Amino acid sequence: MNKNEEKNPGIGDKVKIITPDEEIEGTLIASSEPSLVIIKLKSGYNIGIKKENIINMKLIEEAETREEKLKIEEKKNLPYIDIIVTGGTISSKVDYKTGGVSWITKPEELFKFYPEIFNIVNVNEIKIPFMKASENIDYEDWKQIAQEVEKSLNNKNIKGVIITHGTDFLHYTSSALSFFLKNLNKPVVLTYAQRSSDRGSSDAKMNLLCSAHAAISDIAEVIVVGHASINDDFCYAHRGTKVRKLHSSRRDAFKSVNDKPIAKIFPSGKIEIMNKYKKREDSKKVKLDANFNRNIFLLKYFPSQSPDIIDYLSKKYDGLIIEGSGLGHVASKESRENWIPYLRKAINNGMIICMTSQTIYGKVDQYVYSPAREIEKIGVIYLKDMLAETAFVKLGYVLSKTKNYEEVKEMMLQDIAGELNNRREN
Amino acid sequence: MNKNEEKNPGIGDKVKIITPDEEIEGTLIASSEPSLVIIKLKSGYNIGIKKENIINMKLIEEAETREEKLKIEEKKNLPYIDIIVTGGTISSKVDYKTGGVSWITKPEELFKFYPEIFNIVNVNEIKIPFMKASENIDYEDWKQIAQEVEKSLNNKNIKGVIITHGTDFLHYTSSALSFFLKNLNKPVVLTYAQRSSDRGSSDAKMNLLCSAHAAISDIAEVIVVGHASINDDFCYAHRGTKVRKLHSSRRDAFKSVNDKPIAKIFPSGKIEIMNKYKKREDSKKVKLDANFNRNIFLLKYFPSQSPDIIDYLSKKYDGLIIEGSGLGHVASKESRENWIPYLRKAINNGMIICMTSQTIYGKVDQYVYSPAREIEKIGVIYLKDMLAETAFVKLGYVLSKTKNYEEVKEMMLQDIAGELNNRREN
Repeated sequence: MNKNEEKNPGIGDKVKIITPDEEIEGTLIASSEPSLVIIKLKSGYNIGIKKENIINMKLIEEAETREEKLKIEEKKNLPYIDIIVTGGTISSKVDYKTGGVSWITKPEELFKFYPEIFNIVNVNEIKIPFMKASENIDYEDWKQIAQEVEKSLNNKNIKGVIITHGTDFLHYTSSALSFFLKNLNKPVVLTYAQRSSDRGSSDAKMNLLCSAHAAISDIAEVIVVGHASINDDFCYAHRGTKVRKLHSSRRDAFKSVNDKPIAKIFPSGKIEIMNKYKKREDSKKVKLDANFNRNIFLLKYFPSQSPDIIDYLSKKYDGLIIEGSGLGHVASKESRENWIPYLRKAINNGMIICMTSQTIYGKVDQYVYSPAREIEKIGVIYLKDMLAETAFVKLGYVLSKTKNYEEVKEMMLQDIAGELNNRREN
Repeated sequence: MNKNEEKNPGIGDKVKIITPDEEIEGTLIASSEPSLVIIKLKSGYNIGIKKENIINMKLIEEAETREEKLKIEEKKNLPYIDIIVTGGTISSKVDYKTGGVSWITKPEELFKFYPEIFNIVNVNEIKIPFMKASENIDYEDWKQIAQEVEKSLNNKNIKGVIITHGTDFLHYTSSALSFFLKNLNKPVVLTYAQRSSDRGSSDAKMNLLCSAHAAISDIAEVIVVGHASINDDFCYAHRGTKVRKLHSSRRDAFKSVNDKPIAKIFPSGKIEIMNKYKKREDSKKVKLDANFNRNIFLLKYFPSQSPDIIDYLSKKYDGLIIEGSGLGHVASKESRENWIPYLRKAINNGMIICMTSQTIYGKVDQYVYSPAREIEKIGVIYLKDMLAETAFVKLGYVLSKTKNYEEVKEMMLQDIAGELNNRREN
């Protein structure tokens, strides 16, 4: 007889439940219904089992036992990295009291699910500036992360940095870091999970493993590293300014847009370069340039939209990114709602207005049809193949330096961090 | 000696220009620079050639000759369709006076580039309710198109309808027709071109050919028919409520989102069904239900966005579609800008607010994390896998019938025209 069977299983313990029909393994979670026992399956789903149907409930592993599994030993021959933890699914775990999800805040706990990375790197420091879901991360947080990254990269013992982050607005943070960190010398790797670490289907393990390889590679770029497909075969390293989340739940949610990924990164450590990149220069010093003008807005155009919104926004904001049609149109004079006089007025009152494409893939082009030529003529800046989200971050960055139209236009159309890709057919 | 060589080529004529280095064929267009001859190449690009470098310019074909090529003969054994022309690239041609693009308004001219469709169908009537680029097409236009479609479909001699339309906001029109046309009996086929008909690389010809096959098929749905890939091999028929433009210029710009296309349609006429669809019932009568409440807005959430926008919108609009995070989040209490009190106030003041995902692929889900559960609790309606653009059109349609919260919620969450896909893993 197993000695565990003598104990009564408690919340968080792994148990096997035996009913007349089946045997079910899972983790015991708190039940608000006295007649039901609820367990979380390995798949992440919760099921309730009527107490009257339970023949036996065996304790398989105590919660406390699992907590203590992580033993991080420093291995002197391995390179050192820093990890910055900011929240998101990769930092969340099932709360066995509620069956919901809660934050992991203890570093030991954070890495118990993927001890493999400690065969690749030593973690010098785990920094937790804040814990937030990514929809709550704003320009102040981008700045704070950039400051932490700067400190780590300018530590000569550190080979690179991994930032764990929520998925939804990760591409805003990766863009912000791309603009904020000048003279980048080492890899800055953002990674994530679409499914939390304690679920059987979690993508966290491979993403973090590939991120560790990326962080000690010679790719001195801000990159987003995550599943390339729904299989656990390899990750892509996407350029921070050329990536977007394009699925709510799939593990390969992030796609490079209008550019190829920089590399394929395999869990084994193999790296296949796919695109140009800046090489590591450990001796260089990173400089921080993290000012941001928050008075900017991102507006998606839709047919029938009243241009009154332009009047409203121009009173409150210094800059506006419009997601227009594929080539960058909005309603013009053959429409019942001609936007052009409203745009002209806003520009004349000092607002900077830039045009991007809501088709996501491809680029705006003001030279194909006359309405766009007219929209450009009144001063709207056409941003070629720049993603709307990247354009938003860049505009806030640029408007913190100057509000002079010509200077803003020149900076917006100059490639600073790979955000404009003129080389390839998009 | 070719007799054409005796004539002097004029604007619009096809010519061959011989220089010391090369021979170039193209169409002569007006030049504002007296020292240059400008020709439009088959690829669509214009090039200027210095007059001093031209050894000879031969006339290959006169503009007038090309205009007269179309001879439409009625073939009694072929089925009849109606065509509704609304503008867009498929209805545009190069204006050889300016080198720019202008509308084609004469039906004869419109079809001279693709006479092959007259081997498949007889065109009973070509209707041109208006000519607009799609960014200028609004809810009044959707209604007008729907009225024309209703008339055509209720004509017993007509097997189906083709609507030619600009690409950029075609998916709004296809959604509107999907909701407006009740008891659909025959195919309603929207088609387009990414490159104008007179360019060598135009996709118009195959799209129109496949649309003709679709219009006489048994698929009694509102469908968007166009290139499935960048090759000229076959088209997809996308469901009108499940399609979105996802590239500014590629010929396969339209993608089915969160659903498979209904069918592959080959230029040969072969049709391979891929998904469920309603079958043709010629004897049924279509009913028009084309009311629309235009007081609605589509808002894309971005990090750092001030919730003031909700206050502004709730004073002007009856309904709001938010493009939130993947699962449908916006800033909540751990953010510096908590949206939840603003959403609550707007809803308490009678605004209908619905949530969609800005990841495009996948679906919102209010049950995974607590912020979304809270957002749903205050009354935001989570629209599952419905596209934001489709949701916008549906909300305008539903709000023209009722503003009662419970009734609106019920209709928004009920599948009316394939806009909700609960069957498949997205």
